[in-house]
Amino acid sequence: MSDYRLENRFWFFKTGAYRVLQYIVLAGGLAAMTATTTSNINPELRSWLAISLWCCLGLFACDLLVKSWPLSGTAGASNYLFSAAGLIDALAILPIPLALLIGVSPDTAWLLASLWVLKLTIFVPGLSLLGRVISLEARLLASVLVIFVIVLLLAAVAMHVLERGNQPAQFGNLPLSLWWAVTTLTTTGYGDAVPQSLLGRMIAGVVMICGLGVFGLWTGILATGFATEYRRRDFVRNWDLVTRVPFLRNLDPPAVIALTRLLRRLELAERTIVVRRGRPGDCMYFVVSGEVEVEIEPQPVRLGPGSFFGEIALLEGGGTRMATVVTTAPSTLLILEVSDFRDFMAHHPELARIIEMESVRRASVIKGRSFDAHQSP
Amino acid sequence: MSDYRLENRFWFFKTGAYRVLQYIVLAGGLAAMTATTTSNINPELRSWLAISLWCCLGLFACDLLVKSWPLSGTAGASNYLFSAAGLIDALAILPIPLALLIGVSPDTAWLLASLWVLKLTIFVPGLSLLGRVISLEARLLASVLVIFVIVLLLAAVAMHVLERGNQPAQFGNLPLSLWWAVTTLTTTGYGDAVPQSLLGRMIAGVVMICGLGVFGLWTGILATGFATEYRRRDFVRNWDLVTRVPFLRNLDPPAVIALTRLLRRLELAERTIVVRRGRPGDCMYFVVSGEVEVEIEPQPVRLGPGSFFGEIALLEGGGTRMATVVTTAPSTLLILEVSDFRDFMAHHPELARIIEMESVRRASVIKGRSFDAHQSP
Amino acid sequence: MSDYRLENRFWFFKTGAYRVLQYIVLAGGLAAMTATTTSNINPELRSWLAISLWCCLGLFACDLLVKSWPLSGTAGASNYLFSAAGLIDALAILPIPLALLIGVSPDTAWLLASLWVLKLTIFVPGLSLLGRVISLEARLLASVLVIFVIVLLLAAVAMHVLERGNQPAQFGNLPLSLWWAVTTLTTTGYGDAVPQSLLGRMIAGVVMICGLGVFGLWTGILATGFATEYRRRDFVRNWDLVTRVPFLRNLDPPAVIALTRLLRRLELAERTIVVRRGRPGDCMYFVVSGEVEVEIEPQPVRLGPGSFFGEIALLEGGGTRMATVVTTAPSTLLILEVSDFRDFMAHHPELARIIEMESVRRASVIKGRSFDAHQSP
Amino acid sequence: MSDYRLENRFWFFKTGAYRVLQYIVLAGGLAAMTATTTSNINPELRSWLAISLWCCLGLFACDLLVKSWPLSGTAGASNYLFSAAGLIDALAILPIPLALLIGVSPDTAWLLASLWVLKLTIFVPGLSLLGRVISLEARLLASVLVIFVIVLLLAAVAMHVLERGNQPAQFGNLPLSLWWAVTTLTTTGYGDAVPQSLLGRMIAGVVMICGLGVFGLWTGILATGFATEYRRRDFVRNWDLVTRVPFLRNLDPPAVIALTRLLRRLELAERTIVVRRGRPGDCMYFVVSGEVEVEIEPQPVRLGPGSFFGEIALLEGGGTRMATVVTTAPSTLLILEVSDFRDFMAHHPELARIIEMESVRRASVIKGRSFDAHQSP
Repeated sequence: MSDYRLENRFWFFKTGAYRVLQYIVLAGGLAAMTATTTSNINPELRSWLAISLWCCLGLFACDLLVKSWPLSGTAGASNYLFSAAGLIDALAILPIPLALLIGVSPDTAWLLASLWVLKLTIFVPGLSLLGRVISLEARLLASVLVIFVIVLLLAAVAMHVLERGNQPAQFGNLPLSLWWAVTTLTTTGYGDAVPQSLLGRMIAGVVMICGLGVFGLWTGILATGFATEYRRRDFVRNWDLVTRVPFLRNLDPPAVIALTRLLRRLELAERTIVVRRGRPGDCMYFVVSGEVEVEIEPQPVRLGPGSFFGEIALLEGGGTRMATVVTTAPSTLLILEVSDFRDFMAHHPELARIIEMESVRRASVIKGRSFDAHQSP
Repeated sequence: MSDYRLENRFWFFKTGAYRVLQYIVLAGGLAAMTATTTSNINPELRSWLAISLWCCLGLFACDLLVKSWPLSGTAGASNYLFSAAGLIDALAILPIPLALLIGVSPDTAWLLASLWVLKLTIFVPGLSLLGRVISLEARLLASVLVIFVIVLLLAAVAMHVLERGNQPAQFGNLPLSLWWAVTTLTTTGYGDAVPQSLLGRMIAGVVMICGLGVFGLWTGILATGFATEYRRRDFVRNWDLVTRVPFLRNLDPPAVIALTRLLRRLELAERTIVVRRGRPGDCMYFVVSGEVEVEIEPQPVRLGPGSFFGEIALLEGGGTRMATVVTTAPSTLLILEVSDFRDFMAHHPELARIIEMESVRRASVIKGRSFDAHQSP
Repeated sequence: MSDYRLENRFWFFKTGAYRVLQYIVLAGGLAAMTATTTSNINPELRSWLAISLWCCLGLFACDLLVKSWPLSGTAGASNYLFSAAGLIDALAILPIPLALLIGVSPDTAWLLASLWVLKLTIFVPGLSLLGRVISLEARLLASVLVIFVIVLLLAAVAMHVLERGNQPAQFGNLPLSLWWAVTTLTTTGYGDAVPQSLLGRMIAGVVMICGLGVFGLWTGILATGFATEYRRRDFVRNWDLVTRVPFLRNLDPPAVIALTRLLRRLELAERTIVVRRGRPGDCMYFVVSGEVEVEIEPQPVRLGPGSFFGEIALLEGGGTRMATVVTTAPSTLLILEVSDFRDFMAHHPELARIIEMESVRRASVIKGRSFDAHQSP
Repeated sequence: MSDYRLENRFWFFKTGAYRVLQYIVLAGGLAAMTATTTSNINPELRSWLAISLWCCLGLFACDLLVKSWPLSGTAGASNYLFSAAGLIDALAILPIPLALLIGVSPDTAWLLASLWVLKLTIFVPGLSLLGRVISLEARLLASVLVIFVIVLLLAAVAMHVLERGNQPAQFGNLPLSLWWAVTTLTTTGYGDAVPQSLLGRMIAGVVMICGLGVFGLWTGILATGFATEYRRRDFVRNWDLVTRVPFLRNLDPPAVIALTRLLRRLELAERTIVVRRGRPGDCMYFVVSGEVEVEIEPQPVRLGPGSFFGEIALLEGGGTRMATVVTTAPSTLLILEVSDFRDFMAHHPELARIIEMESVRRASVIKGRSFDAHQSP
């Protein structure tokens, strides 16, 4: 969300360890905040909780200070406070001291620490997707909301008329009836207000069924929109990667597009086992960046960006991996599942021939104990 | 919904401000109606509420009068009362005075003001879509409803037999059992009637699972139908716009169809920023109507209907916008997302070449400080 | 479901009026049965209800007798009793007298009249589809059920251990805990058993979220399967109709398949208005069987099977219907929506040219006041 | 899940009867465990339940022993204990004696028998699919979970502030408020904690609607992912079968891929009727392995692997089966539905011609009373 870059001397704030630390502080702070609201804890524990809450607040403040410090030099620094992430960071820090200053009781002021949970949105990229879906489908979602409101109001009025005589405490005025209607239409059903008359119950039944219908539309719109947007974003990212692999980039354009739709990204750390010898193979891999090592005798072969591996198990009979492959550096791979592999090979025989020839050569080499990486020409 | 046109001298009723006013009156009226049903308000406030309700009613009556006034001259005027919108308008006005006339107490009569909420259907176009989906999928939805009714009745009878001995107040007759069944099958679960016997609880468990199944079908049918119809309606609207852009209309027909499916409409007011210099670019734009201004040095360039912009960020490396673009008039644009852009360009190389050539020309011009609009020949 | 055919002298049993009568008898019978279970009705009404129940039973028996009477002569008659519909008919009739004979009290025996609701399955064809979906997706649905059972049992045991001390009446033994688990996992939530301990509530939260997940899978599998099967069945029916229209049948095979997927059936009674002059047109029609009349001056034109109409509004500018079209006999039409029309025309230029030429001829004829039906060659 | 193979002398453990026995023991054991937790059973029954529980445990132990016995000879045997299935088997056996040894009361120790339900995961292959979907969609599901957590916490804090004064027992501290929030957001709605203030109820309404939204996303992601993975796995299995049928394997590659997507597997036991003479035919069959017998006069014809049947009903007018077909050995068939048949034939005229010629020959033969199997060349 924020493409803010820290200067090198603040390198620690860019590490994964720092991110894990932030998660821990966040979880700990929220737990402490939750604990302080309970009454049956002894004063000593209570003071410790207060201290830990102040510590969390202090750490968040430091984090914000460092990120927005002018001395950190980069152009982005001064902007950090005004980015979405910066605003959330500020929102997590400022309200609590402010509330204490204007005289709010500490018990209530510290409830504002619940805003810390918003920091999760900085870490989870999928949320911006949701915002985009909601803005794209706004008109449809508004239509469903209007149906919701119409059913809600009419049901509430009908129930108010029918039940106000017998149950004034539950349906005596329209706000009470609306409360019943909203709990029923969402099928929550607390049971604190239940129609007693026959006609009232019939209407309630219709409201419940309408609730299922409204719910169904809501679900369908959000789920479809989310899936579409997700696939679109995935396509763009995959395309960037595919065009970095010379071997794939040189295919004719429709084939590149088809392949981009089929591939799946995989980011791996150093020394991770990608495939294990003897295991069944259900996909092949393209190396976008980083490097992998194929562990064959007498000495392992290294494959760099632009090479592929794992195709032998898909082409030869047994379907088992003939060698273990391990990353030697943080690597980005593209995965082609066996079902998509068969599909793609069938429709692009020229590519199929290249991969098959390479595969045959490699398989013979493995049996004859030497192995060279296929590097795209 | 209504294509009624007002005469020029009634121009005010066509403005956006009037629509906003209607929303406010509607919301205010409904809030006042809700408030009058509560008992703990002082008499003075109550009289103010009554006055505001009468005002709302008066305003709606004026609105209807003007729209259906013969003097407004257009052919449609006399028909307005018999259109769907006119009927809803009449339904919102007439019942209240009628109820007061025949002697219904004001408290009850004003509850009819809840019908005002139906006016929302005039403003929200998506509702006609829902009606169409329901009529198209009627047979399927009826099938699900029949399953619902069968499970409902059989469950109610079974529970009546099993529980009437122990819980006569909850399951003593079939209507009571049916009430339990409907709250359970919709997974609302008020908890006012709960089976106590072991067998009864087993049946209840099965009913709940059936409820999930019925719900699932219902959801699936409505959501799928809604998505299909929405896409169909969108296609028709987009096609109308695409064929107004000469540059696109002259593509071969399958390409026009493919493009129509990919594009998204965007209606913008005057002086709205479309793209901002330096921001990442993830789509290109076609101008259908209106005009935009590309803010480049030494003097901005204006692009009218039939031109396109925003393609440079998709074709060149960085992917950032090279200039800010602002509308100079209310404009209709068509958006092509980067993922669809790549797809379309791959399958239509001749179009790709035209756009690329234009883009190269423009990019060089921007660097060389002059810029001409591409106008379709 | 049943392809049983009645002899001509029993023609009444084949009419739509008879079907409506059956619906009324069914609804009336079920209502009477429901009413008899309530205690607060006076004896006179009760005896009337009993009489009407016996009448319904008698009518259903007559219906079954006639349908399975050997004298009705057709080969199918003797089989009717053993068809699915016959079994349901028998199930609706026999149990009640049987129960009365073996000494069950009338109040309980008449509850068996709830089986009459199964007769709805004879009328609603969509139910066989559901059965097919369930059998096709059985393995997937079973997987979801297994997840359901595992979560259910483990949650029940955990809650039993945690809560049996404090709430022996709610969680004192495993069946009670299972009851809580099933109401929670289906998100019904009666509220008769609620965990009180902190750990119990945490587990309950996880169970609810699992419930949403299980529910989601269940929904997805059923809805997707239903949609697929429905489209498949629709395709087969449409294909039968398309191949009856010579004009369409002679297209090249892939075009026939594509068109079959796009078309929608419409069965119309005699003297139904299909399109109305001056209304906006959003589809064209093919006549499969029956006949329609185009009401143009000086005298209407009749179009029989194999002809098409409604294409002018899609091709010419305004998009409004130029003439009213009415069926003169019960007709089956195929509808091509405007979005699919544009798509199909773009991909099949040769068909587009034929339809356009015919349309131009007709449009000129309408303006010149004569009109001939296009009959496929 | 486990591809463990038993030696021949342990053949019994590989039979279907053994599997059914395991199901029965599993169901019996779980029922006995459930029964022992209830207090109102007499001591004699209780001792019988204890005995049956010990028997179940013993049987499971035997099963595990045999499967992991070194003497069973195969290489896999020693690995069984460390496979997923072996771990589940061990988890079902060991905890109970262990708990008894360390002095847990038998009542509580036997509750661990609920772990036996995990054995169902060994039998149901669909579960590994679910695991894969969750790992593939982990980032999206995590995003939804984060939304869930944010709404949950903010709603709980808001409700705590608003309601702690009036309802300290329900909203007096944050854990209590969180409990309310989780039951509301999942639309379970126990009703043990219900907001009373107007503002609180408004917030609750928003929380319920958010719940529907979160639920919708969750449902959509899981259902879409499940459907995609299922289709992918199906494709791979079908492809393996299609390439075993010479007649299909020799089609051009894109046709093989298209056909693989359309076909459906069917595993049949010996002497099962596949199609019945005179019934409507809605699909054709390819024999992958096993053998079927076409029952025609004067003597039946047998069709082995690589042959097809059932196409006559799809090609000829009536659409009814001309002969009954029965399996003579356990067979694997591939089914092509009529809708997919028409589609495939339209796009692959060369295959259509072969099947039609064969069909014509067969149909004439059936009428002329002899019939030869089509064997792929």
